[in-house]
Amino acid sequence: MGQNLILNAADHGYTVVAYNRTVSKVDHFLENEAKGKSIIGARSIAELAANLKKPRRVILLVKAGSAVDNFIDQLLEHFEKGDIIIDGGNSHFPDSNRRYEELKKKGILFVGSGVSGGEEGARNGPSLMPGGHEDAWPHIKSIFQDIAAKTDGEPCCDWVGPAGAGHFIKMVHNGIEYGDMQLISEAYDLLKRGAGFTDKEIGDVFAKWNKGVLDSFLIEITRDVLYYNDPADGKPLVEKILDTAGQKGTGKWTAINALDLGMPVTLIGEAVFSRCLSAIKEERVRASKVLTGPTPKFNGDKAKFVDDLEQALYASKIISYAQGFMLIREAGKEYGWEFNNASIAHMWRGGCIIRSVFLGEITKAYREDPQLENLLFYSFFKDAVTKAQEGWRNILGDAIKWGIPTPAFATALSFYDGYRSARLPANLLQAQRDYFGAHTFRVLPEDASDSLPLGQDIHVNWTGRGGTVSASTYNS
Amino acid sequence: MGQNLILNAADHGYTVVAYNRTVSKVDHFLENEAKGKSIIGARSIAELAANLKKPRRVILLVKAGSAVDNFIDQLLEHFEKGDIIIDGGNSHFPDSNRRYEELKKKGILFVGSGVSGGEEGARNGPSLMPGGHEDAWPHIKSIFQDIAAKTDGEPCCDWVGPAGAGHFIKMVHNGIEYGDMQLISEAYDLLKRGAGFTDKEIGDVFAKWNKGVLDSFLIEITRDVLYYNDPADGKPLVEKILDTAGQKGTGKWTAINALDLGMPVTLIGEAVFSRCLSAIKEERVRASKVLTGPTPKFNGDKAKFVDDLEQALYASKIISYAQGFMLIREAGKEYGWEFNNASIAHMWRGGCIIRSVFLGEITKAYREDPQLENLLFYSFFKDAVTKAQEGWRNILGDAIKWGIPTPAFATALSFYDGYRSARLPANLLQAQRDYFGAHTFRVLPEDASDSLPLGQDIHVNWTGRGGTVSASTYNS
Repeated sequence: MGQNLILNAADHGYTVVAYNRTVSKVDHFLENEAKGKSIIGARSIAELAANLKKPRRVILLVKAGSAVDNFIDQLLEHFEKGDIIIDGGNSHFPDSNRRYEELKKKGILFVGSGVSGGEEGARNGPSLMPGGHEDAWPHIKSIFQDIAAKTDGEPCCDWVGPAGAGHFIKMVHNGIEYGDMQLISEAYDLLKRGAGFTDKEIGDVFAKWNKGVLDSFLIEITRDVLYYNDPADGKPLVEKILDTAGQKGTGKWTAINALDLGMPVTLIGEAVFSRCLSAIKEERVRASKVLTGPTPKFNGDKAKFVDDLEQALYASKIISYAQGFMLIREAGKEYGWEFNNASIAHMWRGGCIIRSVFLGEITKAYREDPQLENLLFYSFFKDAVTKAQEGWRNILGDAIKWGIPTPAFATALSFYDGYRSARLPANLLQAQRDYFGAHTFRVLPEDASDSLPLGQDIHVNWTGRGGTVSASTYNS
Repeated sequence: MGQNLILNAADHGYTVVAYNRTVSKVDHFLENEAKGKSIIGARSIAELAANLKKPRRVILLVKAGSAVDNFIDQLLEHFEKGDIIIDGGNSHFPDSNRRYEELKKKGILFVGSGVSGGEEGARNGPSLMPGGHEDAWPHIKSIFQDIAAKTDGEPCCDWVGPAGAGHFIKMVHNGIEYGDMQLISEAYDLLKRGAGFTDKEIGDVFAKWNKGVLDSFLIEITRDVLYYNDPADGKPLVEKILDTAGQKGTGKWTAINALDLGMPVTLIGEAVFSRCLSAIKEERVRASKVLTGPTPKFNGDKAKFVDDLEQALYASKIISYAQGFMLIREAGKEYGWEFNNASIAHMWRGGCIIRSVFLGEITKAYREDPQLENLLFYSFFKDAVTKAQEGWRNILGDAIKWGIPTPAFATALSFYDGYRSARLPANLLQAQRDYFGAHTFRVLPEDASDSLPLGQDIHVNWTGRGGTVSASTYNS
């Protein structure tokens, strides 16, 4: 990733100093990929610092965690006031908040920047999501926007906000990426185990989808993956891959952040939990021998099924992005960051893993109405979900009948049906809580009365037994 | 709660000292409920300490958080080595870990104890889940087990484990409580909005269920709640209650802990998120005017529907408890706590909010096989889920058709179908990750070959473009 970012910057006319603590890697890089380019090697941090123009600008691409702090400590021995340290790794945003504050005290401008796009993105134009000390922005804006991906002529990079705001947005990006990948996996599973498609046929389905509303990088590479055969025997390689996935990073952080901020980001939550379930492979294998379920039988119209599935995937994806932007909205309030949703959507429009045509529509939605309460209120998405509903519900019905797990599709629909419910059954829950714990409840505005006053915490003696005192604390 | 626990202990022949920082509350208590009982009032912490037999044993019932630390600090001014401080509040278990360590250094024996049962439980026999410094147990065992609920002649209280283990188990209890309440709410919603039952009819359904496999405190109080009419107009009170629920405590902690430990505790996760969704009532009301969905039409057999729903609720509940014990298992490994699952299930069997006949079966399962890998492997539950499946799938089919949200029922079924899948689609996900980020994958044992060696991290150049180097880090 680092090598590719350097080559990218050099191609845009910048002179870059490359450093790695394993000096041989620098040498190898200079003698090969970097040969003949405006790239200088540094064999020590001192040399790195000495070779940089002031204010110094350095971007770290190291493993998130203590490695970042160690590296910053080393840089501080050679850096001076006004220099800029950019963390381009997948750091957790509270760490970036802390580093921003610590370095601010020392006069160093810290930037935490999301970088997405994998190896190819780094080489040819990643999505960049920088946030931190605003004074740094004028010094890095040109190079960041030059090396970033361009969509509709605009760079997929803009200033996100203060402190850890850039890494926060990258975290949500990755959470959404978890969701997108889970949705695609469920679609693949339904096509394979449910409708009995071959990998080649599933590849054809993704190829077709990639020309429609789902047009995106992840759909495109899924097509490629499904078409890829093991050279050894010509059989689809994907079917030989162990079905266990890790989940120790940004996806988990997004779900935890959603719980902390009280936002129902259920699709990412289910995507993370699905990876957890995939990870206990041996237990699943044992369970598969004990627990029974239906055997999928497909006797419908294949083309109709594929179209329904496309709608289910599309609608679920709309829900996931709506939830993601709900989280961003709440985080903005909670942390005092003024996010520009249109700008965020455009940053994700190109270069990064979740890039898609769809994000162009989200950009448009927020450009038209920066105060848009929810993506589902925007006519384009409202209409899309309305149109998708029948297929979405059909697919979930099939999955349930067939015994194929679709946690992400299912939670998306539950969210949709819950979100559009003026009344949810939480009234019963509040009654239960008041019953057993005297936790009190409030009355619906339309049912307020003298005995049930609006806006007050009401306790009722549901049983005729027990007291009428509401919950408080007492020490014994 | 505190008052009731004191009265409970006094009834069992113990002399109890009552203290509250609001002295008038102590006076009022002594002159009323405590009158004529072996209860002594203390008007200061010094008086409290002076009145206690050594080693002193005190239980705090204060709001979780800094109030606990403040109270402990005050106690330390008067307590001495060997004294016992019990935190009976809903503290987060990492706080109890910390307090255990801090007090251990000072020679004070800290106990963090889960207390469940609400007001009535505290008065007549709660479920108690104590953990912490093991030397404290002999000094508090008698009083704890005397005041606790009894089921099958055994107290619903036993030593849970070291440090914060007691509060950890209470946290999981509360998480499961969130899940149970959400499942009941979904059943109520399906009966009300889906099948068009009146509250009285729904009350009758819960009354019937309370005589079967679902026999439990929460089903019982739901019946009572649904039967309870507002004295002012004779209409069901529950329908006048605002449908918003909070979620800032133990349920959220359980879901976050599950994410941290990588265990798919999806039902509690969805239950917490459902409360989040309930909380944004005004946004839902606006959404209800914009977003469309099907209109429920019920023309089936009501008795059959109620039976199917009972099975759906029962099966989902089994999944939730199986997930909860998966979390306990993983926490045991991670934190080095040797949990006794049979003992935990028995502690929850009586006194607490989730008490049920069902927990008797779980106790039995773990008594028969303490090493039982998963509740779903135990014949009783395996058979129950097998039997429940048809009804469970029918109900979810109805919910989807009707547009009524059932996030907990749905995630339970997705978990079941995923858990019994020897192969999940995570192979595709691993291929995608290797494609865009060179994150590597592993091969299925049955497909290992010279070019795809077992147990090794394999990277493939999926596109023919890009490099063959797997992901590492590089600093520029």
